[in-house]
Amino acid sequence: MADLNLMRELTMTADTKIILFVMDGLGGVPKEPGGPTELESASTPNLDRLAAESMLGLSIPIGHGITPGSGPGHLALFGYDPVKYLIGRGVLEALGIGFELTKDDVAARGNFCTVDHNLLITDRRAGRIPTEKCVELVNKLRAIRLPGVELFIEPVQDYRFTLVFRGKSLSPHLNDTDPQKTGHPTLEVKAQAEGALLMAEMANRWIAAAREILKAEKQANMVTLRGWSKEPGLPKFTETYHLRAQALAVYPMYKGLAALVGMDVLQGLHTLEDQLQALKANWGLYDFFFVHYKYTDSRGEDGNFEAKAAEIEKVDAAIPRFLDLKPDVFIVTGDHSTPAVWKAHSWHPVPTLFYSKGLGRRNEVKGFGETACLGEALGQFHAMDLMPMALAYAGRMNKFGA
Amino acid sequence: MADLNLMRELTMTADTKIILFVMDGLGGVPKEPGGPTELESASTPNLDRLAAESMLGLSIPIGHGITPGSGPGHLALFGYDPVKYLIGRGVLEALGIGFELTKDDVAARGNFCTVDHNLLITDRRAGRIPTEKCVELVNKLRAIRLPGVELFIEPVQDYRFTLVFRGKSLSPHLNDTDPQKTGHPTLEVKAQAEGALLMAEMANRWIAAAREILKAEKQANMVTLRGWSKEPGLPKFTETYHLRAQALAVYPMYKGLAALVGMDVLQGLHTLEDQLQALKANWGLYDFFFVHYKYTDSRGEDGNFEAKAAEIEKVDAAIPRFLDLKPDVFIVTGDHSTPAVWKAHSWHPVPTLFYSKGLGRRNEVKGFGETACLGEALGQFHAMDLMPMALAYAGRMNKFGA
Repeated sequence: MADLNLMRELTMTADTKIILFVMDGLGGVPKEPGGPTELESASTPNLDRLAAESMLGLSIPIGHGITPGSGPGHLALFGYDPVKYLIGRGVLEALGIGFELTKDDVAARGNFCTVDHNLLITDRRAGRIPTEKCVELVNKLRAIRLPGVELFIEPVQDYRFTLVFRGKSLSPHLNDTDPQKTGHPTLEVKAQAEGALLMAEMANRWIAAAREILKAEKQANMVTLRGWSKEPGLPKFTETYHLRAQALAVYPMYKGLAALVGMDVLQGLHTLEDQLQALKANWGLYDFFFVHYKYTDSRGEDGNFEAKAAEIEKVDAAIPRFLDLKPDVFIVTGDHSTPAVWKAHSWHPVPTLFYSKGLGRRNEVKGFGETACLGEALGQFHAMDLMPMALAYAGRMNKFGA
Repeated sequence: MADLNLMRELTMTADTKIILFVMDGLGGVPKEPGGPTELESASTPNLDRLAAESMLGLSIPIGHGITPGSGPGHLALFGYDPVKYLIGRGVLEALGIGFELTKDDVAARGNFCTVDHNLLITDRRAGRIPTEKCVELVNKLRAIRLPGVELFIEPVQDYRFTLVFRGKSLSPHLNDTDPQKTGHPTLEVKAQAEGALLMAEMANRWIAAAREILKAEKQANMVTLRGWSKEPGLPKFTETYHLRAQALAVYPMYKGLAALVGMDVLQGLHTLEDQLQALKANWGLYDFFFVHYKYTDSRGEDGNFEAKAAEIEKVDAAIPRFLDLKPDVFIVTGDHSTPAVWKAHSWHPVPTLFYSKGLGRRNEVKGFGETACLGEALGQFHAMDLMPMALAYAGRMNKFGA
């Protein structure tokens, strides 16, 4: 596989356009043995027709048997080894709510929890308080001030919040304070590396102040913090691939991930229609477009097989809009599978359609679906290999060696 | 994937024979959507029959989307990670003309170029002077002498030549002198590492002397030098695989590459018939034979689909000659694809036929071709994995671990 240094050497600019269209959690499994998957049960005349002119295959996001989160799933699609390039949980949580991290920030994921009078945890999720309560408590915690740092705290959902320390030379090398079981006190923050002493002290002071504010609460009377991390400083698309890239996504998490690899992120998109109009409007300005569709994953997580299939049908209706732009390379894939019968992300390889203007090889066509993708021209491949293939078919790769 | 250290541990000697038959640039793509590739359009009764008793698959030379040069393409077939084991451009150019490099040599690729009276480059390729002119000028440059080193200069083709410095402890850590654009002077050679100062000084003196000799020329009145490199000191087949290996190739480049990995190179072969006779004559003396056929690549580079198919048919007629020798393992593959419609090397996986006396697994047979190889027993695999498979099927691999 090509690493990013090799890609930096081999890629060049060209007057070609690539669209990476990600249907989140696209892959599925049948409801009953031998039955169709969500994608196979959906009526997708446009994707089926396009499949007849494309190469099909199955993308392995991380490795066989490995279920990816959104971060690694997308990094792999962007061509970044997701096992090498790690994004901390605090950073991901901040990205997920659209918090704009600077390089001076250390982010942590926070949980409200319940402790007894001996400060021993009785409920690690504070009885799963509703989001409204979370917002109310977070607003109270905004009163906390510490010398030398700026503090940001934002509600996420239910008992979860994001906490960001901003200041010069802050270290994220701290332990999680959640002991991962009840009947134990929350853990003290300790420095896990030289240079993290000051940050550990500030974290402990923030926690003490938070406890003071929360102590009268019945459920959410304490906090745990974990996943301390900084913006990971990933190589950027411009230098790595010689691509001007734009992200057209609705959800903050995916905009945040795209920003991490140096894509320009267009804000203010709310629907697929918004995304399609933006794609057309910005067609001349960029070489690469990452378009993200969330609801296939959402309905898979809900366990609603038919609703997921219906989302795929909505997308299918939009396929001609992409093709009208005459992309040199148009990829339809997912960051992972989210089979409705699993109600969760899964490790199953993801059906992938790879269309290029340049001639490729292909099999007899059986439409676009998991079974159709087996043994097709792309075979099973690692998600990380999609970018090199996209760049090659778009005429953007030099030869390796003489 | 197995690295060479593991292979050194696991391989053993045995009384078995392996033939690696490389049709350069074998892989192709259809002329029109859904049509046959070069290999598929060729009439190949012998290969088709052999395919029925073999495993088929598609070889990925370097990585998805990566187009290999001849050097990396062959290293991968020889089981050497081509991203790890790099061969410098100067060395490859010298190998390409059959120059026998010693470990005291530093080789550079030279270009004649045109400079104006201010020594600014006006043509980086000296108007692509004909090879006869190149020979004439190279003969003049042979007059240059420098103290403490032996100098070799040989014409290659058109405006290209090879320059070799031979001496004790010469360093190849020098910059290219080609500024890669016109309107700029050629660059001075500078040391890129400690210990390269003397070599840099000699290189500059050689360039000054060459300019003095060439200055009256209209076109080729200056030179650029690049790809300074030494014989890479690759691990050898004998130690790595416990194989006595012989290379039967016509073109110097492939003989040179085989020599780099420690194969014995038989000189004086001009035709496939020569190669076949040599194979038979030397059958008892070696365990492994690398047989190289160039013209599939040449016709692909020409963009001549039918001529490439015709070359494949010529090879097909010779297949029984290989089988008559009863090899334990007989592999037919390519170092990369050279689709006639691309007129160049490409990244497309290479159809591969793997015959072994030992029983393998196989699918229903549809002859030997790109489409037939999709979803067949070998699937898509990395070229680097061919050698371990060949050695395993030839009974030359021990178990790994207890």
